[in-house]
Formats: sequence, C-alpha cells, structure tokens
Amino acid sequence: MGILAIGSVAFDKVKTPFGAREEVLGGSVTYFSLAASHFAPVSIVAVVGEDFPESEVAFLQNRGIDTSALQRKKGETFRWEGEYEANINVRRTLATHLNVFADFSPQILEHHRSMDCLFLGNIDPELQQTVLLQMKRPRIVACDTMNYWIEGKPESLRRTLSLVDILIVNDEEARQIADEINLMKAASKILALGPKTLVVKRGEFGALMFNGTSVFSAPGFPMENVVDPTGAGDSFAGGFMGYLAASESLSEDALRRAIIYGSAIASFSICDFGPYHLGKLTSAQINNRYNEFHRLTQFDGI
Amino acid sequence: MGILAIGSVAFDKVKTPFGAREEVLGGSVTYFSLAASHFAPVSIVAVVGEDFPESEVAFLQNRGIDTSALQRKKGETFRWEGEYEANINVRRTLATHLNVFADFSPQILEHHRSMDCLFLGNIDPELQQTVLLQMKRPRIVACDTMNYWIEGKPESLRRTLSLVDILIVNDEEARQIADEINLMKAASKILALGPKTLVVKRGEFGALMFNGTSVFSAPGFPMENVVDPTGAGDSFAGGFMGYLAASESLSEDALRRAIIYGSAIASFSICDFGPYHLGKLTSAQINNRYNEFHRLTQFDGI
Repeated sequence: MGILAIGSVAFDKVKTPFGAREEVLGGSVTYFSLAASHFAPVSIVAVVGEDFPESEVAFLQNRGIDTSALQRKKGETFRWEGEYEANINVRRTLATHLNVFADFSPQILEHHRSMDCLFLGNIDPELQQTVLLQMKRPRIVACDTMNYWIEGKPESLRRTLSLVDILIVNDEEARQIADEINLMKAASKILALGPKTLVVKRGEFGALMFNGTSVFSAPGFPMENVVDPTGAGDSFAGGFMGYLAASESLSEDALRRAIIYGSAIASFSICDFGPYHLGKLTSAQINNRYNEFHRLTQFDGI
Repeated sequence: MGILAIGSVAFDKVKTPFGAREEVLGGSVTYFSLAASHFAPVSIVAVVGEDFPESEVAFLQNRGIDTSALQRKKGETFRWEGEYEANINVRRTLATHLNVFADFSPQILEHHRSMDCLFLGNIDPELQQTVLLQMKRPRIVACDTMNYWIEGKPESLRRTLSLVDILIVNDEEARQIADEINLMKAASKILALGPKTLVVKRGEFGALMFNGTSVFSAPGFPMENVVDPTGAGDSFAGGFMGYLAASESLSEDALRRAIIYGSAIASFSICDFGPYHLGKLTSAQINNRYNEFHRLTQFDGI
C-alpha cells in the first residue's frame, strides 16, 4: 500500500495579505508526502542542494516519510517566490530559481520498484516516462503536470497520459491540455487520451472528478482564515492518493472518499505558512473535517 | 402557498459565443416567476411599456402566472444589452435603458396582500420597504439587491435587510454588503443584519447557503452546452422560493432541497437564449436533474 512520489523540494519566499515568510520549506513532493503520510507509507524521489538542512530531512522522516531516494547535489536547493493578492485566490510568481532541480534525474532505487502506488509530480513528461519504465507495474499511477510542459512538450505529455490511471491538474491546465474552454468537454477529451480518472482542482471552489461516465463535485471548505494557499493543490493530491493507497480500492465510492480526504487535508494546509502544521494533524482532526464536508454537502434524495 | 414577486420585465439584447439575440423577453421577475411557477402559484408586480406585446403576457399567463398587477405605462419597456466573453462567466453590460422601469412604483393589489411568500426583487430598497408595509405578514420574505443600491443607499438597504428572512445575492454583492472579502466572515456580518438565511450565488460554482450556524454548499451543474447565462440567478431564486412556498417548511432540510431545485432550474435556464424553454420544462425533467445533482455530490460518511 506504499506510495512512491516524485517531485520538487524547495524553499519558498511567500507574501500573502496575512504576512510574509522567507526560506520556508516547500515544493510539490513535500506537501504531497506530508499529506499522504497520514494515510499510507510514502517514499519520495527528489533532489536538494548542499544548503538543505538535515533538520528538514528529519522533519519528513519524523512523519515516517522514506527519504532514501532524496538526492543531495552540489549547488542550491530549488527556490520559488510568490505573492498572493488581497483576493487570495490570485497568485503571482515573482521568481523561480530551479538550481539543482534543473538537472533532476529521478533514479528509482531497487527497493522502490515494486511499490503499489506511483505519483508522478509535475516534472518533464519524458522524466515521468523514465520513472514509469523503472517501476514494476504499480497498481495505481497518477500524475500532475503544468502549462510549461503542456505548451513545451505536448507529444511527450500525451505519451505520459496514455500510461497513467489518474491525472490530477487544475482547471486551467485541464482546459489547456484539451484546448477546450468547456470543462465537461475538456474532461471527455482528456479521458480519451488514456487516464480512467481525471481530477480537476479548482482552488476555493473545490474539485471535480471525472471517472468513466460519472462526475463528482466536491466543494472547497468555506474557511474564515486562509493564511497561505501555497501547497494546497499538492496537499490535496497527497491526501487523495494516500487514501486510495490505504483503501486498496479504486471503486467510485473509494475515489469519492479520497477526494474528500484530499479536500480535508488541503483545507488544513492553507491555515498557516509552510508545511509544518500538516505534520502535526491528528487523524481525529482529519476525520472531523471529513464529517464537516459531509454536513456541508448532503441533502435528501427524492 | 402562493408567491408575490416584485421585479423587472425587460427586453434583452444578448451576445454570447454561441449567437446573438435582440428583443428577447427578459427581466428578473420574468425568469423568477417562470422558474417558481413549476412549484407554486406566482403573482408578479412589474411594469411594462406600450410596446410590450400581449403575446408575452399570454406566455406568462399560460404558465399560470397571475399578471393582474403587471402595470402598463406610457413609454418603452426596460431594455438591457449585454455581452458574454468566450469564458462565458464573464459578462459586460453594454447598455441599460430603464424606460418605464425608472419610475416603477409597485402597488400591491388587495387580493395580493395576504400572500404566503414575498420575493422582493432587485429594486430601490425604499420601494422594497413600501411593498413590505402593504403586505399582511407573509410567512417568508426574501429579497435580492445589487451594487447600485449597496453603494447608493446603504442605510435604506440595511433597513430592508432587518425586515427579511432570506437574502439571495451573488458572491460579489455579499462581499460588498459586508465590506469583507472573506465570504464566511461576510456571511456572519450579513446574518447579524437581520436575515436568518443568506444564499450566495456563485454562477458556475453553484451556491452557498448560510442558515444560522449551518453552511450548505451546492455545486453548479457541470454543463457541456451553456448558451446564454442571462437570467440564471433569477431562475435559481425562483426555483428556490417556489420549492419553499410549496413545501411549507423552512427547516434546514427543506432549505437544502430548495437550493438544489433552484440549481436544477438554473441549469436548464442557461441552455438557450431567453426564458421560453423554461416554460416548457416538465416536472420529470426537473426531478431528473435533482437526482443528477444528488449523484453528483453524494459520498459516504465515516
């Protein structure tokens, strides 16, 4: 039931209407693995620079995250800088310094090749395929991507999509992949490219899941205090995959529960800067939030 | 169980990515009453000009809508012109000619004063209060408003809000009334002004209902073919109020079902130009859509 997750580890410089932070631990696989670790064992494949403190590695390890495939390379760790507007849904990227992440070449260690679930974070689709080729047929393969690859390597991205079970992207990325503004039509086009399941993240508006002919809509959790949305999408993906890994089912019901668990973790993720509070969540808190989602959405049938 | 609804009747000139129409029957009370008429008897209070064809009056009457308080005044009927972008959620108003609507003074006829439910459409909040004073304590009073009154007559609007049970507005209006970007905080502030229930319309993202301490989130229906969103919000309000009028309950469960019926009608409203297809809906179609909303949103508790 373990998950192997490939992605970035970074240091973020973040400004939101509620404050500013520098050198905050970030990166897609950081948020993903912390979220997933509440449900299933996670091993990460990533790269950091010489400047990456052992204390941050220990923080991940304390959550039970296997860092045996965390490479340490000469140079600096990936750094990202962004700013959120008063309307906290609007984000501007101010700087991206890939540093050691620019030459990231994910190497799958022998003891990771048989893992049950694989999450291919947002990296070059060719690297995503290289990873897949090193794995022994995992039960579930999910991937993420971004506009940079959708525009820059569309053919390679299509090959990746033909090989995965689940694509997890945001609404703009889904529209861009399908070259179609209407999300329902975009979803049909994407499912025709290979994935059996498409999860579309919509920030504060929640998520849509297209699974075969079924559509599931989950709301964002209405929050009074959103401090920093950085990492919310990756936390969502982590909670989603973590639940699927633990449940050992890909039924529609299990997928829906996974969407809600992902949404629950994402709702905690945005309450503070950085990922540290994600590590401290209890299963009681997570299950309470799941139940709050249930009360938020349920109504009688006729 | 009847509803008295006050609002505008207009002719719209609309351009969307799917076509353009001129002199289409429109206005808030038109969409509202057609939607509500599928659930409960509706009487409208509105004004039209000399140019308003009897055939349009007959169209409303054929839906059982009582037009005895539809005033006909010297001059032209209200005209609105708008355009939707390729992203059909973005609308620009190109022209507003109030015409006879500029001097609209709603007169409540004797046989309407005891009606069970009152919907105060988007008119001057002072006129909304004038209408309320002419009514014999209706069981449910709901109102709508817009930025023009929120900015122009804030004190008068607060008096209206102190007198109604339910406020139905869109997210931007809710934020503006409360002077608060965060929707949860805005909702708390608005409920403190008087309404027991706040319904926040969010277009394609559905609706949020704040009822006392409970929050309910309903999605927009994922649509492949959105032709013209004009009137969707008013159709939503009509279906919502229609169901409440018919159910004779204001319980949380009834309010939630009303939100879904409103959402169901709104989803049909946007499939074509104008309101004519709203008149042709069958209760089987409406109930099927309700069930589709149920399948779209439900998941297991834990």
